[in-house]
Amino acid sequence: MRKKDQSKISLGIDIGGTNIKIGLVKDNKIIKKGYFKTEKDFDNQSFTNHLIKIIEKFIAGYKIDKIGIGIAGYLLYQKGILKFSPNLPKLKNLPLKRIVERYFQIETFLLNDADAMAIGEYFYHHKRYKNLITITLGTGVGSGIIVNDKLLYNSEFGHTLLIPDGYLCSCGKRGCVESYLGSYGMLKIARNFYKKEIEDLTPKKIYEKAKKKDKRALKTIEKYSYYLAIALSNLINLFNPEIIILNGGISNMGNLLLKFVKPFLKEKVFFLPKIKISNLKTLAGIIGAVNFSKFSRL
Amino acid sequence: MRKKDQSKISLGIDIGGTNIKIGLVKDNKIIKKGYFKTEKDFDNQSFTNHLIKIIEKFIAGYKIDKIGIGIAGYLLYQKGILKFSPNLPKLKNLPLKRIVERYFQIETFLLNDADAMAIGEYFYHHKRYKNLITITLGTGVGSGIIVNDKLLYNSEFGHTLLIPDGYLCSCGKRGCVESYLGSYGMLKIARNFYKKEIEDLTPKKIYEKAKKKDKRALKTIEKYSYYLAIALSNLINLFNPEIIILNGGISNMGNLLLKFVKPFLKEKVFFLPKIKISNLKTLAGIIGAVNFSKFSRL
Repeated sequence: MRKKDQSKISLGIDIGGTNIKIGLVKDNKIIKKGYFKTEKDFDNQSFTNHLIKIIEKFIAGYKIDKIGIGIAGYLLYQKGILKFSPNLPKLKNLPLKRIVERYFQIETFLLNDADAMAIGEYFYHHKRYKNLITITLGTGVGSGIIVNDKLLYNSEFGHTLLIPDGYLCSCGKRGCVESYLGSYGMLKIARNFYKKEIEDLTPKKIYEKAKKKDKRALKTIEKYSYYLAIALSNLINLFNPEIIILNGGISNMGNLLLKFVKPFLKEKVFFLPKIKISNLKTLAGIIGAVNFSKFSRL
Repeated sequence: MRKKDQSKISLGIDIGGTNIKIGLVKDNKIIKKGYFKTEKDFDNQSFTNHLIKIIEKFIAGYKIDKIGIGIAGYLLYQKGILKFSPNLPKLKNLPLKRIVERYFQIETFLLNDADAMAIGEYFYHHKRYKNLITITLGTGVGSGIIVNDKLLYNSEFGHTLLIPDGYLCSCGKRGCVESYLGSYGMLKIARNFYKKEIEDLTPKKIYEKAKKKDKRALKTIEKYSYYLAIALSNLINLFNPEIIILNGGISNMGNLLLKFVKPFLKEKVFFLPKIKISNLKTLAGIIGAVNFSKFSRL
């Protein structure tokens, strides 16, 4: 009996720019989790070695039925190859699916981290929303787009253009969504209000100040929300989602953010969907990664 | 034999703001076509009467197996209801599918005109492109988006935001794609270069002047192409299409337009798809409308 029960445990991994989050998932619940570091300097070889060691230690003693790996970057989905990752710039054309699968002899799936988050939310909400979008507002800005119960692979909403000739983006272009709505974007916006004392500011500190009614912090969040509303309105007018779920560090501002975003948004769209902050937070990616095999692509 | 042969003839209709284009389609070729006027003042009743008269006259003597109607506007696809149309502002919640179907006792399909164009191009290209986008650059700007052989219903790309606080759009918002890339948008852009003598200018006249190397006309098309490239780059980064096909009056500028667009676009995207001018032109909507039933939605 014990063995049969354990056979339903899956391993979900969410690889970001600074952390690897990893979890054992059973019936869409996390029964064990861990956080590990990644290094910007990792190349294909050192990254793979690092990841395999983490997995090996983490799953010791468990029988795992499948492994799902979400990673920021552009993927060749059918081949399970990571073509490139903005956060781990030395990785190139890495056949991560095959490597992990061969090493552990466990079926492995590779997908984009934001796509994983959307799938995680989809199952967390018991498939109630056939048209669901998740936006991750962190260092980068990721998008996971589900249309009519199917996933739009590799949507790069973070690098669509928000403001022509706007802020310089990490991708080299100007004015991308990410250059305004990522953490550094928020700090750039803050610069308009804070002038000199900007050096040690972070989105988290801005939030702390805003809760204490600091005017410059509130102005920053208001202006940020204006840009967020523009970005969301474009997604809404294209995809008509039933719900948009915000995730990532900046989404921890919660209602303070939504209070500003919603009125801006109402002016800009034909139909206003639900806008929510994720309850799953960082676990969305782990839960989504293990559910990828249940999901067909658009 | 004659009867069997005729049973494969379908009726395709493309309802725009000023014209109704109508055609008999056999094996994806138009065997008879006609153009009729529409009036901005039409309400549900007068529009329906007008359309039925046109169809009745046009199909007399033919055996029609199905009717496909493409119309600019937002549709409730499952119900076959036109919720509203920007071009025919007095139409509201019109159950056009049911009305036509009952009157003629022929199976009828209702879809967005830009969606119809995308389907038309999809079949014209012998289903070679699983990921295909059509953009209509006319009075309005329409988008038809096919992802992995499926249609994204009701995408309103024309009313996504291009320039925050930009030109006023027909929809009441500011800075929509359409407010720059529709015919009036091009004239607004031209105003930056032409100053006073702008009154009788049209996109067609700008094109004529540009062919004669008129500098202001070329500047207008260059600036227009810059905005078009931004808009297209956003679609490319979201959908990764294999091909984008331009249609509508402004696309008649052909290579002159593409010559400006492509270099701008190369700077803005991760992967550059084919960018083509439609060969089908206005027939795309008619051919697409009759093929709608073969198409599943995203």
